[in-house]
Amino acid sequence: MQFLDAAAADFEQVFARIVRNNRDNDADVGRDVATILNEVRARGDDALVEYTMRFDGHRLTDDGDWRISAEQCRAAHDALEPTLRDALQLAADRIRAYHEQQLPQDSDRTDGIGMRLGSRWLPVDAAGLYVPGGRASYPSSLLMNAIPAKVAGVKRLAVATPTPKGGTNALVLAAAHIAGIDEIWRVGGAQAVAALAYGTKRIAKVDVVTGPGNAWVAEAKRQLYGVVGIDMVAGPSEILVIADADNDPEWIAADLLSQAEHDPTSQSILITDDLGFARMVEDAVDLQLMSLPTAKVARASWEAHGVIIVVERMADAVPLADRLAAEHVELAVADPQALFDRLRHAGSVFFGRTTPEAVGDYIAGPNHVLPTGRRARFASGLSVLDFMKRTSFIDAGPGALAAIGPAAVALAEAEGLPAHARSIELRLK
Amino acid sequence: MQFLDAAAADFEQVFARIVRNNRDNDADVGRDVATILNEVRARGDDALVEYTMRFDGHRLTDDGDWRISAEQCRAAHDALEPTLRDALQLAADRIRAYHEQQLPQDSDRTDGIGMRLGSRWLPVDAAGLYVPGGRASYPSSLLMNAIPAKVAGVKRLAVATPTPKGGTNALVLAAAHIAGIDEIWRVGGAQAVAALAYGTKRIAKVDVVTGPGNAWVAEAKRQLYGVVGIDMVAGPSEILVIADADNDPEWIAADLLSQAEHDPTSQSILITDDLGFARMVEDAVDLQLMSLPTAKVARASWEAHGVIIVVERMADAVPLADRLAAEHVELAVADPQALFDRLRHAGSVFFGRTTPEAVGDYIAGPNHVLPTGRRARFASGLSVLDFMKRTSFIDAGPGALAAIGPAAVALAEAEGLPAHARSIELRLK
Repeated sequence: MQFLDAAAADFEQVFARIVRNNRDNDADVGRDVATILNEVRARGDDALVEYTMRFDGHRLTDDGDWRISAEQCRAAHDALEPTLRDALQLAADRIRAYHEQQLPQDSDRTDGIGMRLGSRWLPVDAAGLYVPGGRASYPSSLLMNAIPAKVAGVKRLAVATPTPKGGTNALVLAAAHIAGIDEIWRVGGAQAVAALAYGTKRIAKVDVVTGPGNAWVAEAKRQLYGVVGIDMVAGPSEILVIADADNDPEWIAADLLSQAEHDPTSQSILITDDLGFARMVEDAVDLQLMSLPTAKVARASWEAHGVIIVVERMADAVPLADRLAAEHVELAVADPQALFDRLRHAGSVFFGRTTPEAVGDYIAGPNHVLPTGRRARFASGLSVLDFMKRTSFIDAGPGALAAIGPAAVALAEAEGLPAHARSIELRLK
Repeated sequence: MQFLDAAAADFEQVFARIVRNNRDNDADVGRDVATILNEVRARGDDALVEYTMRFDGHRLTDDGDWRISAEQCRAAHDALEPTLRDALQLAADRIRAYHEQQLPQDSDRTDGIGMRLGSRWLPVDAAGLYVPGGRASYPSSLLMNAIPAKVAGVKRLAVATPTPKGGTNALVLAAAHIAGIDEIWRVGGAQAVAALAYGTKRIAKVDVVTGPGNAWVAEAKRQLYGVVGIDMVAGPSEILVIADADNDPEWIAADLLSQAEHDPTSQSILITDDLGFARMVEDAVDLQLMSLPTAKVARASWEAHGVIIVVERMADAVPLADRLAAEHVELAVADPQALFDRLRHAGSVFFGRTTPEAVGDYIAGPNHVLPTGRRARFASGLSVLDFMKRTSFIDAGPGALAAIGPAAVALAEAEGLPAHARSIELRLK
């Protein structure tokens, strides 16, 4: 962990290094992934069988090896401990309610010259959702990806998830049941993304692929961007907590650790205007690490990437926060709105002392798939729009064409595109 | 040109091949582009000087070699023939009016448990706009890219455009003046995209790069996706005209040629329900090609990629159109709305007999940067949203946290993330 005083002479130098530091997985898997994509494209299901045996130790033979059925999902759901089942259902209901507000408006207007102009949004026909296996297999991620697609109106939603040695995750299956997904393929990795994007005999192709994954999955999505739509290039998770001395240091320490426990490459940063408070949070982190079951990961993250910055005034935190453009920003201050009004770059913002980031991971409603690695400067969290596309339309009657057609003819001729000009001129005669 | 009868036994086979046919430039420039990006990242302006000398024969020495000034743009604008100047201004005004309708609404609601949830849209800080040099240097493209960024509220807009042997395009400069751009860099190719994305000593980095370009530019954008936001992977232009026999065959022929003249890889397709009309259009295309100044390109495109399909009923055109998911679709029929209501996949649609596609290229208002190569299945035309990003926010008072916090704790524990659970539990005590 780095402890920084913003008034120090070398602060700008050190902070600039933190901003520049790229924690993305730079494992050079580009060539391996390209090979896998080509194999799946060329040999379809045969390639899936081979890769799934090799990487997951799972043999794809019968239908039951290939797919998890809707009945299995229902059974997993019904067998769940009631508290957990209700929690998943509450999360799903709140995520749905929030995302329903994102449904875009069509437009259809006739302007002053009588030209009708508009745009129409429609869902994509089919979406593929990648769900990781193993440690990062989260039912919350399934809900956060599937529900926006459902709200968008996507008719077909296909999940791909690896089942190493045949093992499945009951919580993920239960979440799939709640989300209303009945097409789950037991394939993972770059080969799963390739199957969704190109299609195989068994797995029909989709139009959009979303969902988290390891370096191979992320690279496969990057390489297939354009063949299908994708949600985002996602990197390690991160949190920036801006907190004054009126917070309970234990609460803030827990918030910092809630990101740190995700992955050794995760990053937790605290900015405060009180040196004593900063030291108390530092101590509280150390204390909590002693009892935290995920301490091994959390400590690695905190030691390598944790940062505490002491600024003179709370307002000084805003320009630093904008440079970090963090995935999650907590504003644990008396007047969070005042800071929010000046902040420009953040994936998601958590107001006040009783809104820990984790509430947004599960149950608040907004999406937890958010831009990382300073991408909040230009990117947004996953939304209903990622599963829709817009068609613009133009209807020029003869009068409207007469009004503006000659200007278009002039421009077409100036650009050296005479057929463009002619297609308008013929109609102006 | 392929002339197809939809009732023929082999139609499905032939049509499927047309749908699958990838006209994207598959020139393998990936490695060359990666080298250029690395060089610009490592050596900044020095690399730009070398590449610009090598590729454009233009020496970057003084400020005037590096940049085109606002004064030069104003002078180019003022020297323009008045008809053309007015046409550019009319185009800009109409593009602005259309895109102003796209400005998204923020949301800010408090739900039943007293939790405040919302989202806020803001423009990116800086956008880079690539403008090709040479034959494809179009003032209309500058307007179509720059105006949505301006409407979004982007403060800094940097144009990069190659000036081979020092030559500039007066129309593009005039368009830059009208769009209010005062930062134009005389660099092009992958090296220009790299400079915009990474930043150099002279050229400050931007957050989003949009604009058309050759295979090198497109590949540079693809490789830099994630470092910056980009608009799209764009391929060759295409038009699908759905026209009944009540159209003037000459008009439809001109529409088909207006795409064909863009590039030998462009594609023009006619679907009609009347064999006689189809033959008349075919003849009209041949006739117009005899006098068209751009006939060399247009003929190459029409011969290699042109298609005429005769269907039994007009309604049969819709499923074919959805499979093609074309960039531009003209519905030159008596009741275009009826077809539009059933059509799902198209970049932009042109209603009726007096709305030639070219009117949308210049002056109607909707953007002419549209998804190609069947990407209208999942992608949309360039819009104000491409220059903005959305931040979600959550404000849980103690009451709201008490209402749903326990469910989040249950889910966090089930996912094996105890620090997540603890950050909520501490606040529930």
